[in-house]
Amino acid sequence: MNQSLPDLDRFFNPRHLALIGASGTPGKWGFFILLNIIKGNFQGTLYPVNARAKEVLGYPCYARIAEVPDPVDLAVIATPAETVLGLIDECGQKRIPNLVVITSDFSETGAEGAALERAVVDKARGYGIRLVGPNTMGLYSAHSSLHALMPPVEPLKGPVSMFSQSGNIGTQILAWGVDAGIGFEKFVSSGNEGDLTCVDYLQYFAQDDPTRIVLAYLEGVDPDSGFLAAARQAARKKPVVIFKGGRTQAGTRAAASHSGALAGSYRIYQGVFRQTGLIEARTTQEIMDCTKALAAYPIPRGNRVAILTRGGGWGVITTDACEENGLVIPPLPEAIVRKLDRILPRYWSRNNPVDMAAVVTAEPFMECLAILAAWEGVDAIIALGGRAHIPGRNSINPDVAARLAGSADLLKQIGAHVQAGHKKVLECIHRLIRETGKPIISVTLGPQDYHKESMEVYQLASYPNPERAVRALRMLVDYGRYLSSPEPTD
Amino acid sequence: MNQSLPDLDRFFNPRHLALIGASGTPGKWGFFILLNIIKGNFQGTLYPVNARAKEVLGYPCYARIAEVPDPVDLAVIATPAETVLGLIDECGQKRIPNLVVITSDFSETGAEGAALERAVVDKARGYGIRLVGPNTMGLYSAHSSLHALMPPVEPLKGPVSMFSQSGNIGTQILAWGVDAGIGFEKFVSSGNEGDLTCVDYLQYFAQDDPTRIVLAYLEGVDPDSGFLAAARQAARKKPVVIFKGGRTQAGTRAAASHSGALAGSYRIYQGVFRQTGLIEARTTQEIMDCTKALAAYPIPRGNRVAILTRGGGWGVITTDACEENGLVIPPLPEAIVRKLDRILPRYWSRNNPVDMAAVVTAEPFMECLAILAAWEGVDAIIALGGRAHIPGRNSINPDVAARLAGSADLLKQIGAHVQAGHKKVLECIHRLIRETGKPIISVTLGPQDYHKESMEVYQLASYPNPERAVRALRMLVDYGRYLSSPEPTD
Repeated sequence: MNQSLPDLDRFFNPRHLALIGASGTPGKWGFFILLNIIKGNFQGTLYPVNARAKEVLGYPCYARIAEVPDPVDLAVIATPAETVLGLIDECGQKRIPNLVVITSDFSETGAEGAALERAVVDKARGYGIRLVGPNTMGLYSAHSSLHALMPPVEPLKGPVSMFSQSGNIGTQILAWGVDAGIGFEKFVSSGNEGDLTCVDYLQYFAQDDPTRIVLAYLEGVDPDSGFLAAARQAARKKPVVIFKGGRTQAGTRAAASHSGALAGSYRIYQGVFRQTGLIEARTTQEIMDCTKALAAYPIPRGNRVAILTRGGGWGVITTDACEENGLVIPPLPEAIVRKLDRILPRYWSRNNPVDMAAVVTAEPFMECLAILAAWEGVDAIIALGGRAHIPGRNSINPDVAARLAGSADLLKQIGAHVQAGHKKVLECIHRLIRETGKPIISVTLGPQDYHKESMEVYQLASYPNPERAVRALRMLVDYGRYLSSPEPTD
Repeated sequence: MNQSLPDLDRFFNPRHLALIGASGTPGKWGFFILLNIIKGNFQGTLYPVNARAKEVLGYPCYARIAEVPDPVDLAVIATPAETVLGLIDECGQKRIPNLVVITSDFSETGAEGAALERAVVDKARGYGIRLVGPNTMGLYSAHSSLHALMPPVEPLKGPVSMFSQSGNIGTQILAWGVDAGIGFEKFVSSGNEGDLTCVDYLQYFAQDDPTRIVLAYLEGVDPDSGFLAAARQAARKKPVVIFKGGRTQAGTRAAASHSGALAGSYRIYQGVFRQTGLIEARTTQEIMDCTKALAAYPIPRGNRVAILTRGGGWGVITTDACEENGLVIPPLPEAIVRKLDRILPRYWSRNNPVDMAAVVTAEPFMECLAILAAWEGVDAIIALGGRAHIPGRNSINPDVAARLAGSADLLKQIGAHVQAGHKKVLECIHRLIRETGKPIISVTLGPQDYHKESMEVYQLASYPNPERAVRALRMLVDYGRYLSSPEPTD
């Protein structure tokens, strides 16, 4: 690890963790954080601290931090603002190197709070203490199963690390990740950034080996903070997905009263993102969609796309979305047409998009996919309709059920056949990606659980509609372009 | 009903329905359509027709349409293309007024198919027969529970009627509607439009009383077809949501080989949509989001929005999305600030967005909502965080579970309290919409089922992220603006 960087490893992987303000009373944040740490099955030792309780949620409680019998790597503070200055002294005397200050009512509420925050940070620095927050929603680490978070979110473990200048948005992204099958390695809600800032987190995640993808929600950074250089270094090592809050005038005003961020001009931020190779998501949905694609797929070598579809209309929509996003749909060369002719009915489109018309079985779909993936003229494939989404109503009329009873076996066979076909298609896509090094993005038109299963079982990102798949692919293409551009020498 | 329009009522509500090509053999489309009609619990009498079967799926089968003992209102044809001309004669002799020709391999496959299609249509017209298709995926009607569709989709019943120039997209929208809680009244896949065209369907839906919202997937219309006049008339009566496939050059080529549509310039279409007050959705997701908002909410009187949020970051994002979509976030007048001061903690934002900071209980949220909804200075409310989405992992460690056993009652109480709070919030929003006539759009950050429940139980459209809510609201605002513009006199 680069010696000039703050050592954040012990923040994320403490062996001895104290929670100051731990509470057995719901309604207090010290209750919810304690519950999350316990339910998260923290791998180190936990020391709840609270002068007014002997026991909280089955754990013995210490009246003061000084009474904790072991050295403490990390203390989380969830007591009212007026207690924090005193606690810094107690933590300093206990030689605790790192603090997470959940407590709010500091610089985000005005001049008085800002003065208190400065005093807290100055005192902490006097003891050599580093500090996350204040006004943070906490942090998470997969390695030590540490869930020091205010909301009861239980992230999946995986390759993504995130810092967020909004605790609500950051923890919600963790929760969306559970639905989408996107796992997280580390997370920190950066709060008011009284001491450690998003530049520290970016640098740390950039050199953190288990972190393969960095994700960031940003409202503003100090122009002199070294963000630009940190971003440039990080993006050469691994993809960094960024979302900027406060893009408009009204949004900037809202950001100022939220995080007090020096939001600055969005155009300047966009310039920085482009220059440094950060991948900008423009909606919260794009954050998830792009991150999922990065976790699942190789970076495409160019912007040429083949589309395979089971329905003509979907091919049209996907083509529109590609062209509107700067992706190219090259015409099929004669050799590919001849290969596909052997599989498809006489009246197939003979065009890219390849419309399979009424062919609905799995085998020809996989054969077409293999031909398109091997085609030198494209860099990525979008495969539509590997599985259609037909939500059942489960409200079959009893008379109808009786009439169909004689066909029950037949209907069961059809169901099993369709099911087996889906599995074969997913395995085929997985194999073709490995063989060709090209992303093959599946659009399956729902349902939500299916996408999660694709991701968790087959490491395949699939999307419920073509537009979302195309946006994710476009972001991968942009990043690939950045990586293949010459590195600046400044 | 306007006498000059074709009488489509008997298409959607036949009493006696024949399925020509009904089959007991999976793999044939006549099997899947039959199964869908049976499972859909069709309210009229069904007559399967197939010369090679005595019985299909428990129903007696007729060898020829002439053998059906009763008069037939509608026949669905699902036999190979070469049989269709002969069947038109048989149907004509049986005096069947309406046909749905599922069969493909007509004009969509080239000149030969086009000639056959013309012959079929000419012959049908000779008998006075009107015809949906050919190359259609069929139709659906809530009133008679008619599911004459190729894919096994079972739509919810509701206020939306749709025509689609893509059967796959149309039926997928029906399926997405099941997930989103959006119900349908009528649907037709327009196929090759050999006889009846989307102009007929638009005119029919415009004057069809149970249809409150019209939805359309369009690839192209004949400029002389009267589409413009029909669209203008329809949009004055009820909202028409349209999605255009073939917006780009590459997409137009794909559309030409899909539906053979005269796609024309997208810019011209956009001009027509704007002029006639059609509501254009730009993604498949927007189709659903906008339709849901139209089904749930009154049309706002203007573009001024109040934002209520439980988290500062969400307020920032929502403000950005509003400003980027031409919606205005007016500052709070002093009187509103004073009212909110009584509810919120000392350090609240005193701004629109109204950030409730760490206040998470239901009552203050509802009080703030009531104040904002009553504020004359805004036309709509976006309420963020009525319910946060925390997906559980259900993988609690047994040791941890044992430690928490003593707190089980406490944890159960918290869960029940939170649950009751959500219900109260939904009921409050429902009431405030009725009282104020303003849309109050809830952003609940997932999960999917929750949005369906909001829609089905409370008729409230909620969205999993603010950007989607804002886009839907913007489309409502545009439609409201159109309605309040003077009607052209041409």
